[in-house]
Amino acid sequence: MDPFDGSSVTETLRRISAELGCSPTSADVAAYLDKHDKLRHLREHFLVPKIADLPPSDPSLVDGTKECIYLVGNSLGLQPKKARQYLEEELEKWAKTGVHGHTGGSRPWAWAENNIEELMANVVGAKTEEVALMNGLTVNLHLLMLSFYKPTAARHKILLEDKAFPSDHYAVESQIQLRGFDPQQSMLLLKARPGEETLRTEDILEVIEKEGESIAVVMLSGVQYYTGQLFNMAAITEAGQRKGCYVGFDCAHAAGNAQLKLHDWGVDFACWCSYKYLNSGAGGLGAAFIHEKHKDTIKPALMGWWGHNLDTRFQMSNVLDLQPGVSGFRLSNQPILLVCPLQASLEVFNMTSMQALRRKSVLLTGYLEYLIQQYYTKDPAQPHKPHVSIITPSDPQQRGCQLSLCFSIHIQKVFQELEKRGVACDMREPSVLRIAPVPLYNSFSDVHRFVETLGHALAASS
Amino acid sequence: MDPFDGSSVTETLRRISAELGCSPTSADVAAYLDKHDKLRHLREHFLVPKIADLPPSDPSLVDGTKECIYLVGNSLGLQPKKARQYLEEELEKWAKTGVHGHTGGSRPWAWAENNIEELMANVVGAKTEEVALMNGLTVNLHLLMLSFYKPTAARHKILLEDKAFPSDHYAVESQIQLRGFDPQQSMLLLKARPGEETLRTEDILEVIEKEGESIAVVMLSGVQYYTGQLFNMAAITEAGQRKGCYVGFDCAHAAGNAQLKLHDWGVDFACWCSYKYLNSGAGGLGAAFIHEKHKDTIKPALMGWWGHNLDTRFQMSNVLDLQPGVSGFRLSNQPILLVCPLQASLEVFNMTSMQALRRKSVLLTGYLEYLIQQYYTKDPAQPHKPHVSIITPSDPQQRGCQLSLCFSIHIQKVFQELEKRGVACDMREPSVLRIAPVPLYNSFSDVHRFVETLGHALAASS
Ligand SMILES: Cc1ncc(COP(=O)(O)O)c(C=O)c1O
Ligand SMILES: Cc1ncc(COP(=O)(O)O)c(C=O)c1O
Repeated sequence: MDPFDGSSVTETLRRISAELGCSPTSADVAAYLDKHDKLRHLREHFLVPKIADLPPSDPSLVDGTKECIYLVGNSLGLQPKKARQYLEEELEKWAKTGVHGHTGGSRPWAWAENNIEELMANVVGAKTEEVALMNGLTVNLHLLMLSFYKPTAARHKILLEDKAFPSDHYAVESQIQLRGFDPQQSMLLLKARPGEETLRTEDILEVIEKEGESIAVVMLSGVQYYTGQLFNMAAITEAGQRKGCYVGFDCAHAAGNAQLKLHDWGVDFACWCSYKYLNSGAGGLGAAFIHEKHKDTIKPALMGWWGHNLDTRFQMSNVLDLQPGVSGFRLSNQPILLVCPLQASLEVFNMTSMQALRRKSVLLTGYLEYLIQQYYTKDPAQPHKPHVSIITPSDPQQRGCQLSLCFSIHIQKVFQELEKRGVACDMREPSVLRIAPVPLYNSFSDVHRFVETLGHALAASS
Repeated sequence: MDPFDGSSVTETLRRISAELGCSPTSADVAAYLDKHDKLRHLREHFLVPKIADLPPSDPSLVDGTKECIYLVGNSLGLQPKKARQYLEEELEKWAKTGVHGHTGGSRPWAWAENNIEELMANVVGAKTEEVALMNGLTVNLHLLMLSFYKPTAARHKILLEDKAFPSDHYAVESQIQLRGFDPQQSMLLLKARPGEETLRTEDILEVIEKEGESIAVVMLSGVQYYTGQLFNMAAITEAGQRKGCYVGFDCAHAAGNAQLKLHDWGVDFACWCSYKYLNSGAGGLGAAFIHEKHKDTIKPALMGWWGHNLDTRFQMSNVLDLQPGVSGFRLSNQPILLVCPLQASLEVFNMTSMQALRRKSVLLTGYLEYLIQQYYTKDPAQPHKPHVSIITPSDPQQRGCQLSLCFSIHIQKVFQELEKRGVACDMREPSVLRIAPVPLYNSFSDVHRFVETLGHALAASS
């Protein structure tokens, strides 16, 4: 029996617990799932902090020597073990050979990022030539928008989420202003229905259908950072393009989390960061995608020497020989010190596939959902018992690994009590804890420990 | 007697050699100068490669165990010794505390770059609030130009060097196109007089005087990357602004090399990279400067969450509370791994002053010039003897530390022979070797060894 065979999570848990002769909520089930997890060895490629080393942990409450319960890879991924080695190799090269590092060694600095773009492309379902590693996410979003957003009087709107990540909101707002349009008129914000937390695909598609003729660019996130909702990128792309819009995605929370097929879906452009699910360290190298169909037609608005063909880039001619596609959008040379940790992480991704990771992820997050529902659903019989609601869609197709939890009591307090007990997770204003069991390194036991610890935290908070 | 007292270089060398009873070209003079160099201890803060470790070196020709003759800090600065330690501290923090590194430790990642902006500002003669560390140089140039270059039918030109660094050339070209103007009409290129290699200040000022009314932005380099010419930034700024132009500088080759007074000169904007004279490693963090006089009037065209006030940045409100001045131009969060080596280097700069470094630099480069002239000037009596000419201005006020050398024979060959003998320098198409004795870590003996080695290289090449 393969617990990862795609049956419903509840079904799977029942079957396992029946076999083990225990409750579906028993830690034995988690242990069983970990034992049968063919990807569990990937955790060994990452450094998992110890509870005692987490600044807010309280060793009087938990065993500090244990590994922490790290469920915040959606904010900052764990350090790949090879990151340090690769960095040291480059520091050594710099120390020993100085400027010769530009062209020498296994990671010649002058094109080191190019050497890992294939590994990156595999993770997001793109062709290598469709991906450029460069800058930060917001910078890339702007560079892309400068080419894809060319408003006209008739078609000047950008469609985005009402609660888009602030940087994206500001980026869109300023792009509209730069083109002489009015954000009040040109920012079309997708709002959830009253009383609902997430956007319905049908509503998104309807807005596109209705307003599409006035929309220049549809710019949504792949996975919504706050709610954890995974948008139906294929359907949205299709709908937007049918109406003549360009469709782009901020994949900050989708890359390395959901199974993306940027190429097959025909997405026009995308950008993402690498410090979350891609584990490259704070402020790691950003990425941009432009579909190959635009290779010869969409040109960068802003140009720099890194967009010049590599073969002749250093001949210093001042006649730009622009690389096709997203490669031409490169401006500055890229930092080798950011390539190293990203390479280390992408190599781990490439030991498996996003398909396999995703399969585990559906079960792992489903398991988290199941346990939370078992323990912390609102109980009409005990109205004062603290309870938890999940705003992330319950349909696995509509979420990545993250669940966003709301509480009947103050989250600050719950968050603190979790932190004291060795949980690393993310509190987002105004009212959610974002919990991300990352299939690359989190275990079913992590999830079980979290839910158990949440019980203690709730008890201590109320 | 202080050899660094500002006398003419020739005068100083004569005096020392008279005192020592040797020729001014003797290695003893170099040793004497090093002994009296009050900044010589700064070299100890850097890792100087050994000759044998340089890939092109030939140990049959020179002693490979010696330190190499590193004269290419204008391309890639040496590694500050503390870079590795600082990086390891942050890797350790990441490994041990994960996401808590954003706010914990001595370099909280979420504002680590802000903590070294004062050190950076000191090096370029700016106020801390006038400097932002972010992105790469070309990216920053574009972000600045988007705000400073707002062409009108009457004032649409950008003044730049005919042989500007390619990335700057492309940047200016694409900015003009983005605004709907024609680079043919709007790029005003400063050419050297026929038969001359460098631009005369009087000619630059004359063009500004004549064409100023049609110039929107004067955008020159501080130090020209190819010729090594240091422009009179104060006079150019004054002249440009008198005509109503904005004046900005690409200080890639000036920051950490020349003594800049960006604030006092009233320069409108500037940008630079940190991997050259600022020793931050390949692709290191870029910088931007906007004069405080524009703090409340010049707004960024493109916006992102890092431009939001730090106090409320993470409240995720979607109403941008823009920081004043250059701080508002921040888009993406910055990489901690790039902050570390830059901090290590800037700390060394801040152990002294650019004034003191510059004093040494004038003598150090003057010494190089003197020796080259002694040995390799064209000799009418020996027309076949290879000779060297210097295209960098001979006036110390008009150059930084770099000398650009032309040869009567093929430079490729000379370059190769130098590399075999443990010299690291830079060959630039079409025809110069750029030699940069960096006052921060190069010694007078480095210069003497270089000139001696050049003799062997020329002999082997001809
Ligand atoms: C004068 C000058 N400007 C611009 C650049 C481009 O820098 P970046 O690749 O950091 O944008 C360089 C790089 O060497 C340079 O020397
Ligand atoms: C969805 C989303 N978009 C954009 C950003 C901004 O990223 P950067 O600072 O790399 O530009 C983030 C950062 O967390 C994000 O989560």
